[in-house]
Amino acid sequence: MFKSEEHFLELINSVFPNTHRHMLVGRGDDCAVLACPSKMCMSSDLFLEDVHFRLRYFSPKDVGYKALAVNLSDLAAHGAKPLGFNLNLIWPSYLDVGFCRSMLEGMAELAGQFDLALTGGDLSFGSSLGLGVTIWGQSPEKILLRGKCLPGDILFLVGQVGLARCGLMLVEDDSRDILRYPVSTASHLRPVPLVPEGRILASEKRVRGLMDVSDGLVRDLSRFLASGTGVEISRPFSVHQEVVLYCASIRTDPIIFSLLGGEDYSLLGGCSQDDWPVIQSSLAKVWKLGRVISGQGIFLDGHKLSLKGFDHFEK
Amino acid sequence: MFKSEEHFLELINSVFPNTHRHMLVGRGDDCAVLACPSKMCMSSDLFLEDVHFRLRYFSPKDVGYKALAVNLSDLAAHGAKPLGFNLNLIWPSYLDVGFCRSMLEGMAELAGQFDLALTGGDLSFGSSLGLGVTIWGQSPEKILLRGKCLPGDILFLVGQVGLARCGLMLVEDDSRDILRYPVSTASHLRPVPLVPEGRILASEKRVRGLMDVSDGLVRDLSRFLASGTGVEISRPFSVHQEVVLYCASIRTDPIIFSLLGGEDYSLLGGCSQDDWPVIQSSLAKVWKLGRVISGQGIFLDGHKLSLKGFDHFEK
Repeated sequence: MFKSEEHFLELINSVFPNTHRHMLVGRGDDCAVLACPSKMCMSSDLFLEDVHFRLRYFSPKDVGYKALAVNLSDLAAHGAKPLGFNLNLIWPSYLDVGFCRSMLEGMAELAGQFDLALTGGDLSFGSSLGLGVTIWGQSPEKILLRGKCLPGDILFLVGQVGLARCGLMLVEDDSRDILRYPVSTASHLRPVPLVPEGRILASEKRVRGLMDVSDGLVRDLSRFLASGTGVEISRPFSVHQEVVLYCASIRTDPIIFSLLGGEDYSLLGGCSQDDWPVIQSSLAKVWKLGRVISGQGIFLDGHKLSLKGFDHFEK
Repeated sequence: MFKSEEHFLELINSVFPNTHRHMLVGRGDDCAVLACPSKMCMSSDLFLEDVHFRLRYFSPKDVGYKALAVNLSDLAAHGAKPLGFNLNLIWPSYLDVGFCRSMLEGMAELAGQFDLALTGGDLSFGSSLGLGVTIWGQSPEKILLRGKCLPGDILFLVGQVGLARCGLMLVEDDSRDILRYPVSTASHLRPVPLVPEGRILASEKRVRGLMDVSDGLVRDLSRFLASGTGVEISRPFSVHQEVVLYCASIRTDPIIFSLLGGEDYSLLGGCSQDDWPVIQSSLAKVWKLGRVISGQGIFLDGHKLSLKGFDHFEK
């Protein structure tokens, strides 16, 4: 157990440096003082035990890593350059100092990849483990929004959909041999935030809009598209081999499974048909999802799909 | 119950405007885009049910108000001008939409006083109510830090200590007639963040340092003072009449009780002896706490006190 609040802060300071070119005054005072860009992106995400993760299959390092990764993905969706983050930590009495150190190291590993400063936070006892991260960074010149695509435009994805859902279902099911699904389980436990890809797309004047796919493509598509527009999904639809394998085992259509997805942290974007070849050549992981159409709905092979993604408040 | 995440977001949008001169892009996208000052103060605080508050005696409006107030106090301690905040909300199934509306209204009431924008956040189910706020604002030109006072300097307080502790003990004790202690209970339920006072002090070049007193003056004094220095407490020590009354009823010394305090959200500052008259005349609520001395410790009437303030991790 932690002996005192100071003991905890010493641990934080041993894992996260308290100096950074964007931190004029570091942690430890009432608040950090930051050297900020004039246009700043800011986003917050909660990461709660038994809501967003289970300790049964998340290692301490995975917990720390993913709490930060999901926040980075929000900045990636704006093409922003992440600079720092605050951590609110709810700490339960049943976890020990070693767990905390590993968790912070998992977070620091990812923070180091993007040269992020830990710029503050708070900690408190609580009945289960919870992390709340607020991340901030520099906005690109062109701000990428939703609802900007026109009928005829191309919708594209960077990264895969369905893999993380496949991973979640596998780790939740003790009867499964998860070693056969390394990419799926990694997609759930350690999603890679597409920060460089977001920045490249934001620097492309051709991109009409961008968002990250976190609640399933079906739900997020309806948020991304302007009202009164829909999408005709194209073939081939990119499905990872592990998803194909898993869906065969549960007798489910892999495209429908992938469209439902959830926690994909892929990027959904749009551009005009003319600009699509340029976008396509700018990024290795980009692929065509479909075409924007007049009238609402998601169509596949001419059929309108009636699917719902994930909602925290629906049962 | 909330019917969906959209239902919840509609409620948020009905209580908090989604436009603000510092918000280039509002909530509802992956992240807000903010027009930021080049020197920004940022701070985060958790406010958790049964850790920081109980629903037995906190009204929904009080919960929303205080979650934001404690964050504002951190910015007040830097003399910063608050501009906006993000809210991470953990929502338990046993509270209804009406509670949420009132809670947000309590928060919006305080946000309105300081013209703050709600710039984003996240929400999730959880086993009990929890609010995590990250607040940001404009740093003053002169950054006020801890550890800058010299022996001989005057330490001063803006606001009272002990009142909020008195209020907490009263609301926790069902046998008490709390109506006799309106100021104490209000200090616990609705602390007033001393933002204007912090800004006035930060604009005074004479102030050596400033912090907010949240964990009890005894503990916070040791954080405020440079190592190797201490304080000789002066008389008269400002004690509110309600604290005197309460301490008489529990046969405790009211000064010791007030020094232990906790959640005071008063401001602790320091200045040279020569500058003290100017500081004293600049603010109505300022009073002299004592004098910085060489050597560690808190002295009252020549005796060294051995008291400890609040620590989240000590039992």
